[in-house]
Amino acid sequence: MAGQSRIGVTGLAVMGANLARNIASRGVAVAVHNRTGSKTTEFMSEFGGEGDFTGTQSLQEFVDALETPRRIIVMVKAGKPVDSVIDELTPLLDKGDIIIDAGNSHFPDTVRRTAECEANGIRFMGVGVSGGEEGALLGPSIMPGGDPEAYAEVKDIFESIAAVVDGTPCVVHVGPGGAGHYVKMVHNGIEYADMQLIVEAYDLLTQVAGLDAHAIGTIFEEWNTGDLESFLIEITGKVLAKVDEKTGGPLVDVIVDQAGQKGTGTWTAIDALGLGIPLTGITEAVFARGLSALRAERAAAAKTLAGPTPAKKADESLVDDIRQALYASKVVAYAQGFAQMRAASVQNGWDLHLGEMATIWRGGCIIRAQFLNRIRDAYAEHPDLDNLLMVPYFTEAVANAQDAWRRVVVTATEQGVAIPAFSSSLSYYDGYRRERGPANLIQGLRDFFGAHTYQRVDEEGAFHTRWAQDGTEVRTD
Amino acid sequence: MAGQSRIGVTGLAVMGANLARNIASRGVAVAVHNRTGSKTTEFMSEFGGEGDFTGTQSLQEFVDALETPRRIIVMVKAGKPVDSVIDELTPLLDKGDIIIDAGNSHFPDTVRRTAECEANGIRFMGVGVSGGEEGALLGPSIMPGGDPEAYAEVKDIFESIAAVVDGTPCVVHVGPGGAGHYVKMVHNGIEYADMQLIVEAYDLLTQVAGLDAHAIGTIFEEWNTGDLESFLIEITGKVLAKVDEKTGGPLVDVIVDQAGQKGTGTWTAIDALGLGIPLTGITEAVFARGLSALRAERAAAAKTLAGPTPAKKADESLVDDIRQALYASKVVAYAQGFAQMRAASVQNGWDLHLGEMATIWRGGCIIRAQFLNRIRDAYAEHPDLDNLLMVPYFTEAVANAQDAWRRVVVTATEQGVAIPAFSSSLSYYDGYRRERGPANLIQGLRDFFGAHTYQRVDEEGAFHTRWAQDGTEVRTD
Repeated sequence: MAGQSRIGVTGLAVMGANLARNIASRGVAVAVHNRTGSKTTEFMSEFGGEGDFTGTQSLQEFVDALETPRRIIVMVKAGKPVDSVIDELTPLLDKGDIIIDAGNSHFPDTVRRTAECEANGIRFMGVGVSGGEEGALLGPSIMPGGDPEAYAEVKDIFESIAAVVDGTPCVVHVGPGGAGHYVKMVHNGIEYADMQLIVEAYDLLTQVAGLDAHAIGTIFEEWNTGDLESFLIEITGKVLAKVDEKTGGPLVDVIVDQAGQKGTGTWTAIDALGLGIPLTGITEAVFARGLSALRAERAAAAKTLAGPTPAKKADESLVDDIRQALYASKVVAYAQGFAQMRAASVQNGWDLHLGEMATIWRGGCIIRAQFLNRIRDAYAEHPDLDNLLMVPYFTEAVANAQDAWRRVVVTATEQGVAIPAFSSSLSYYDGYRRERGPANLIQGLRDFFGAHTYQRVDEEGAFHTRWAQDGTEVRTD
Repeated sequence: MAGQSRIGVTGLAVMGANLARNIASRGVAVAVHNRTGSKTTEFMSEFGGEGDFTGTQSLQEFVDALETPRRIIVMVKAGKPVDSVIDELTPLLDKGDIIIDAGNSHFPDTVRRTAECEANGIRFMGVGVSGGEEGALLGPSIMPGGDPEAYAEVKDIFESIAAVVDGTPCVVHVGPGGAGHYVKMVHNGIEYADMQLIVEAYDLLTQVAGLDAHAIGTIFEEWNTGDLESFLIEITGKVLAKVDEKTGGPLVDVIVDQAGQKGTGTWTAIDALGLGIPLTGITEAVFARGLSALRAERAAAAKTLAGPTPAKKADESLVDDIRQALYASKVVAYAQGFAQMRAASVQNGWDLHLGEMATIWRGGCIIRAQFLNRIRDAYAEHPDLDNLLMVPYFTEAVANAQDAWRRVVVTATEQGVAIPAFSSSLSYYDGYRRERGPANLIQGLRDFFGAHTYQRVDEEGAFHTRWAQDGTEVRTD
């Protein structure tokens, strides 16, 4: 039996509910379902009037409500719940039906599920959705991965619900299999770096320049009118401006300094390590969250470990230096993240079009920013770009910012303020622009203690020095 | 049938051969075997006279040559070859026989193999061995993990072949299951950090102080008489002093600046990310090797990306500053690595005695150093230490070094020399000694865009501000 609804959503927590409402608002008939039926009832009574919804109380009823091929969006907690839903749906579906996992699944799971569903004749898509609750409702950035023919069956719906920037919807078929969730993972990793850079700027403005949260909020508001214009800079201004109802002071001053995380930053860093891609900005951001969690240890260490006390002294020129340091570090973080996606694309045969990723991240998602237009332009001109730093726009941007960037790292270092992302990004930049770095010595040491051999600059081949014997060099290839 | 040899070694590449020779040199009868029989023949003709060896040409012959319970050291390439050897040995063995994997296996594989062997009545041990070829022959550091009763069967042999420092052999039963290979992995990770710190010092002495390799070699020789005394500092002096036969100049100057890696550093960093432990020193060292591999990209970037040119100007005080920066960064790298082992011990129920790890690393292995006596002392006094930085010896060492450390980071930053490990270690130090860091703002942002909630400093519970609605704060727990 086939029904009338063009698409179904199972999982009606806020993300799933908002996605369903977004779809229905475009005039599409949507069947909704939730494991706990009362949630469906609540959804129908609260939002049922917004569009052509069919509330269903069992998976059979849900499946029966859908036209074929069935299009089923699964929006449940990543991990086992996704597998459970797939297992329960599979016997109820027909060949060619499409299951769309729109949650934050880890891409290797998506690769596995794609194969498992394929074996049952079901088409599976792993779709990254960014934008939080509001994005899901009003227009998210959507990163669909999977079979292109399956995507063709939902393309019009996805394009109608996505955010739109300059007339272009923020959705594109990313690639096969796990590509969509992979790209969403890197998006989240970049989000970690963006946020860490923002809080390092905030910390310097507090500790070194001695400004209070509201004053810093005003600075971020200003920054949001320039190169840094982005959702995260904008909301930083708002969060810093927020007055706490209880104390009458800035809300941030009463928020505990311990950052939570849901794992996607960690996945991104682990993936980069596996690929052998230097991803220092995102990884330092992940480690900084880990350090923030060691509250009791930090409280003890603060009483014990020596270091300078920051000046807390107003300094006009420092504020603009910090802006430039933030921008240059951001360029590096994105350059690293895009290099990572490139490496993954090659390794997995995904043929990712990196310019399209920048395009669909311009709206709807957490890292949306003007800045992404520049990245889009860069890949439009140089689709095979090794590193974003090498296109003239970014080369010049960092060239102009680097003196200020160095001054900020120097000041933070002298005054004892931790800047793991600012400084690791600068070290990456300085390491990347060295034709000859110091790793020759690493190779010499590895050859000494482990006979790991080395290459010579003046002759092809692999060489080993018989360090412990007669000290002569031998070819080993 | 049971034979006369007390222990067997299969896999006669240089590490296995040297381990067998080491054991035989202690008067122990050793059966040897290699998949390619000619290797065994060669071994017997070259080394057979050194001790009581029995050369065998098949696994059956090998197994028959051993007394029971059989003790079999497997020294083959990590990965599938280890599984193959286990699979082939298993049907030939009796209940209670012991298979000892002494290669560089990844600890999750060791956990799996332990269970698989146990199901077949065989006792499996995963044993880390460090010291390279020479260590294997003359006295390595040995990190045995697995069933304590199985260890009792080989304890005397291991203690006889291990390096000895101050009368104590560099071997101790580390813990159950994968604990031995785990600790060896972290050992190797720390080795990555040690080497990266050395090459950053070398790079600064070259680029900023303008010294040549031989002059820097002399400096490392000097450093090896102080706090930094260690195998790696010692051989750095030797490698830098080495004259290339072909050019007549320093050998390091003709070695290609691209560092190889065999993966243990990457495993360590990935493990730390999984545990949520900030491990910035080792991870930056791994990323630096990744960056060193991008030779073509670096060559192009060197022509394009702007930055200062280092002074290459002699500066006496800089040399000692660099020594202190190296020492302080090293303390941080070890503090992080030991914190990681502690977290893994808790998570896996291994009950690692961290002071024992420092003890068995004092000799035989690549990171052997005077310094480890201090770590040993620290854990002797405070077995439950959160962080090495918190014991008076290290607190004071870093307090004394930190001014110099900051000056080095400042100089490198101003002169454009990459120092990822020096600077990330300093940022960790400055972050760790902050009772209140800036992660409150991260929580504010996460609550704004994702309703992830935050804690308050003045009230228990989880809170959410209704940012997009009326701006009021609600409790969510």
